[in-house]
Amino acid sequence: MTSETYPSQSIIEQSHDLIRPYIHRTPVFTNTTINQLSGAEVYFKCENFQKIGAFKARGGINAVLSLSEADRANGITTHSSGNHAQAIAYAARQVGARAYIVMPDNSPSVKIKAVEGYGAEITFCPNTPEDREATVQKIIERTGATFIHPFNDYRVIAGQATAARELLEQVDGSLDVLMAPVGGGGLLSGTALSARYFSPSTQVIAGEPEGAADAILSFKSGQVERAPFVKTIADGLLTPLGDKTLAIIREHVREILTVSDEEIVAAMRLLWERMKIVVEPSGAVPFAALLKHREQFAGKKVGIILTGGNVDLGKLPF
Amino acid sequence: MTSETYPSQSIIEQSHDLIRPYIHRTPVFTNTTINQLSGAEVYFKCENFQKIGAFKARGGINAVLSLSEADRANGITTHSSGNHAQAIAYAARQVGARAYIVMPDNSPSVKIKAVEGYGAEITFCPNTPEDREATVQKIIERTGATFIHPFNDYRVIAGQATAARELLEQVDGSLDVLMAPVGGGGLLSGTALSARYFSPSTQVIAGEPEGAADAILSFKSGQVERAPFVKTIADGLLTPLGDKTLAIIREHVREILTVSDEEIVAAMRLLWERMKIVVEPSGAVPFAALLKHREQFAGKKVGIILTGGNVDLGKLPF
Repeated sequence: MTSETYPSQSIIEQSHDLIRPYIHRTPVFTNTTINQLSGAEVYFKCENFQKIGAFKARGGINAVLSLSEADRANGITTHSSGNHAQAIAYAARQVGARAYIVMPDNSPSVKIKAVEGYGAEITFCPNTPEDREATVQKIIERTGATFIHPFNDYRVIAGQATAARELLEQVDGSLDVLMAPVGGGGLLSGTALSARYFSPSTQVIAGEPEGAADAILSFKSGQVERAPFVKTIADGLLTPLGDKTLAIIREHVREILTVSDEEIVAAMRLLWERMKIVVEPSGAVPFAALLKHREQFAGKKVGIILTGGNVDLGKLPF
Repeated sequence: MTSETYPSQSIIEQSHDLIRPYIHRTPVFTNTTINQLSGAEVYFKCENFQKIGAFKARGGINAVLSLSEADRANGITTHSSGNHAQAIAYAARQVGARAYIVMPDNSPSVKIKAVEGYGAEITFCPNTPEDREATVQKIIERTGATFIHPFNDYRVIAGQATAARELLEQVDGSLDVLMAPVGGGGLLSGTALSARYFSPSTQVIAGEPEGAADAILSFKSGQVERAPFVKTIADGLLTPLGDKTLAIIREHVREILTVSDEEIVAAMRLLWERMKIVVEPSGAVPFAALLKHREQFAGKKVGIILTGGNVDLGKLPF
């Protein structure tokens, strides 16, 4: 299984070919008013229009397609309360495999329904890392299912890398900067690799919530650090990095910029109001960082990956 | 000025060529889940991504470009609290003409700001038809500006017709049904003409709010009727038809279906949640009609014009 090795250029290209029939080549949006307001020339890769409403479909389907027939026959398992759960459930259904998803027992019903909608078997557990892992372990012992980590997995990273690769293909000329949010670092490390291989002159800059500021610490120390505190509206970015994502990020990412929840909500609102698209708080984080550091990006061609659009419309921060 | 005559096929084609540099060729979205839920094969023309956030940019720019240099020099005027005000302000700026917009003094500040943002001169007046018209009349006497009606104007109708023409071009094969909402009828009459000229086998069906149900009455009686009562969340559809729009609609529209506000909000929510796009209540009306009459549309290829995305995010009905 070549795709479990470090994602080389050809592995990312192969992954892209592999997953293409199962994912959308999402559009890239530009907006005159947003360019005027930001002072940059911004290209938004709309992964909110991706299958399952988020980029995670890419990594999920790539990981599942990379499994042998024998492994698929035993099913796939993971723990997640968010988009990764849907991604694995969606991917498993595409290959006709069973998905066993462990979700915290306080998961929003809209997310539970979405996972059920893809035919996955859900096991609920208390919302602690220990409980999640123990529950997954029991499922593996019972079924022989393969565990797919949400981000610290080279197959997942190679899948997420295809979003940036597409964006680079879709923009005329080269981007000065490519931005992504950072949670566990699957998307950011994939984005950084795609920039390295397909557009080496492009700087990769990440956005991170102040209320989950672990990556910026890990980036400096070289160790996987925990955030001093975790409290942010960007609920897709709560997780610390993994060793694999950290190593790639340290080598290929230029900078991590942090933003407050107020800045995230303002950026999110601007995207909704001006571009007429639904973007989740986590997805607005890099654009918030751009707006906060306008002078740094002034006049530059900036690509931003809008990661997803899965929000609870009944609980908007506006 | 040929464009003040009844919109023939060639006038719509010419109008399209004329306005193309100033408008977006908006994308057509499809969605697997929405097709499953509705039982139809639905193609959404995303005019919420249009300039000014609504299809009205098409009619506004077409009307303004149709004016002689001499007329443009005296400026353009209209009264509107909504998207037409922005459309005229935007169009005037494109040709370097002055725009004098009469707005009700209770207009939402977000709409006032948008019109100001295009450099238009705003005159406020009490929110009655008489006051609006008197205020416009004074502006015309003072400036010699040309009045552009929001819908009962062949130049405006020809401009709005280009949305349906594009949709018909963008979909492979022919549509069984083409749907639009009806307020004053500018979009619906233009849509009906484009279907007649460019896809004669396509039925045109309109959606109208129960809380502004004048068009369905006018459609039956052949006279411009008033709604029995006006109370709906679809604030872009409050106006009765005009004589020009009524005549076209009676000749070329198959049917008008009415929907409740509850049905409009449910359809709107489905579009936001599943397609991750911001659609205003008026824009969700035809899709609400489709969902209400599922059996009528089952298995059919249906094009729907999503008219706009200008909503106040602070006052959502979710």
